[in-house]
Amino acid sequence: MVRSLLPVLETCDNFRLATDSEHLTEFRLTPDAKHIIGLIPDAVFTALQESDNDPEQPVWDIRPENDTSRATLTFHPRLDSAKSRSEALKTIVEGWRDGGLFPNQISLRLWRNELYTIYADAFGPRTEDNIAFYLERTACALFGLVTYGVHMTMYTQDWKVWVPTRAKTKQTWALYLDNTVAGGIPHGMTAFDSLVKECSEEANLKEEFVKKNARACGAVSYFFRSEKGFLQPEVQFIYDLPVPVGQEETYIPRPLDGEVESFTLETFDYVIEMMHGGRFKPNCALVFIDFMIRHGKITAENEPNYLEIMSRLHGRFGYE
Amino acid sequence: MVRSLLPVLETCDNFRLATDSEHLTEFRLTPDAKHIIGLIPDAVFTALQESDNDPEQPVWDIRPENDTSRATLTFHPRLDSAKSRSEALKTIVEGWRDGGLFPNQISLRLWRNELYTIYADAFGPRTEDNIAFYLERTACALFGLVTYGVHMTMYTQDWKVWVPTRAKTKQTWALYLDNTVAGGIPHGMTAFDSLVKECSEEANLKEEFVKKNARACGAVSYFFRSEKGFLQPEVQFIYDLPVPVGQEETYIPRPLDGEVESFTLETFDYVIEMMHGGRFKPNCALVFIDFMIRHGKITAENEPNYLEIMSRLHGRFGYE
Repeated sequence: MVRSLLPVLETCDNFRLATDSEHLTEFRLTPDAKHIIGLIPDAVFTALQESDNDPEQPVWDIRPENDTSRATLTFHPRLDSAKSRSEALKTIVEGWRDGGLFPNQISLRLWRNELYTIYADAFGPRTEDNIAFYLERTACALFGLVTYGVHMTMYTQDWKVWVPTRAKTKQTWALYLDNTVAGGIPHGMTAFDSLVKECSEEANLKEEFVKKNARACGAVSYFFRSEKGFLQPEVQFIYDLPVPVGQEETYIPRPLDGEVESFTLETFDYVIEMMHGGRFKPNCALVFIDFMIRHGKITAENEPNYLEIMSRLHGRFGYE
Repeated sequence: MVRSLLPVLETCDNFRLATDSEHLTEFRLTPDAKHIIGLIPDAVFTALQESDNDPEQPVWDIRPENDTSRATLTFHPRLDSAKSRSEALKTIVEGWRDGGLFPNQISLRLWRNELYTIYADAFGPRTEDNIAFYLERTACALFGLVTYGVHMTMYTQDWKVWVPTRAKTKQTWALYLDNTVAGGIPHGMTAFDSLVKECSEEANLKEEFVKKNARACGAVSYFFRSEKGFLQPEVQFIYDLPVPVGQEETYIPRPLDGEVESFTLETFDYVIEMMHGGRFKPNCALVFIDFMIRHGKITAENEPNYLEIMSRLHGRFGYE
């Protein structure tokens, strides 16, 4: 019996809404919306109320908590489009940033200048009519909004995996190990197009090669609470890239845009050791666990927590 | 954009605890147990109370419902082992069977004479100390207990899939289409050993061939309410068997034990058409959807409900 990887998963899927004691306000698009889109801690809730001080331009409607449900924050009915909601939120979070609020999450140094798409139904179609609004990437965690990315594992036929070390200049998780290519999905791009772009930018892998060889293999979802205490429910679209046999010398990922320090080709045993040692960015370890399950390296016979891991790799955030 | 497979998934994952209006009693091993092991409809709850009529040998403890939680049924503390609980339940359900109770679920005709293992933590280790009790297979649905099986897809390199038609004499889902090999995990066997056994019995595939070529690929879990109205949360361990290239004529599944009418090698398009047409046993359609996601045939770009499907293929039954 191998050493269970459940503790590795739990460094990433580390928040459970049903049992958490923190006071949180539900963020919904409208009071009767079926889906929760975010969970707001009290500090942010207070700041939202304080910033909503123009009676001519109200931003929020608030329904107080009662015996059976949490307080619910929704947009004021006048903000009835993705565009108007995005603009209102932009003004608020840039005001906070410039005023020095939540400096460990949205200071100018951490600001990404990258818009993420927030969906009315987090697991719903990625179509226009499911878009709730757009928001600066790093601000999403303030509201516990679900964000989306792509993660790819590039591997050789003898089951070695290309593992990057993140650049020491990265704003987050500097020098941790990562999946071969990974990145957030910027607004307006499909998952696969984002992957092709990241493969080029991060790993110098040509578009034609990636389009021909990368294969969609599913998605993982997990509820992460960051060290800063903010909630980050995430969904990652997963891809495998098996290097064509005999072309292991031709197709090699190389750092290009400075996000990656170096790429090395590693054995499964090494990767597993590094995961247990906490050397991987937590969600990247989780993607590698999914890889090992899909490829029969982790089985019901060698992993005692197989079903616990498998089901928690695909969580629905406890929203229902 | 292909036609969404979400309606196909929903014929199988068709019950949601959070929104269901049925009155259900939680079945737990002990009053303070962390995990729910089953959900009991009122008709069964009444029958359980009525059969518990020997004051010298009490079987149940019942904690009534209150404002925030359902009624909870647990074993009387004297039944503190898997053996004693199994014996008590055996007496009860055989009494019901012989007395003609729940005839559309546990009549002699439907009785399988096969014991399933029920776990204290449904997603926990499959070890002795997690075993709650054993129970006749077909009786598990009366209590909404989680049951476990194995499902395998055997396919050729040109992406054709071996599809069996279930025998017309099968007690359930006669003449529906199925996964290449599938079966419940009887008590005392590992998932993989069950698969090897079923491959031999149902499809005449030799042990050595299966052990060498079948690959564990994960697990799916879904909450099914049968047409009879009983709850059947299920977990299936998933395997792929890619037929070795050039040996497509050598390795062919053939009916052996009478469970299967015939095996035919079918294209993906045919399988998808049959799924939309309701020709597949519902959980087998779901396993095939998982197969197509893992192998890049269903992607975020061609399936609008990709994330909804992906997350619901790995549900936790709403127990937490």
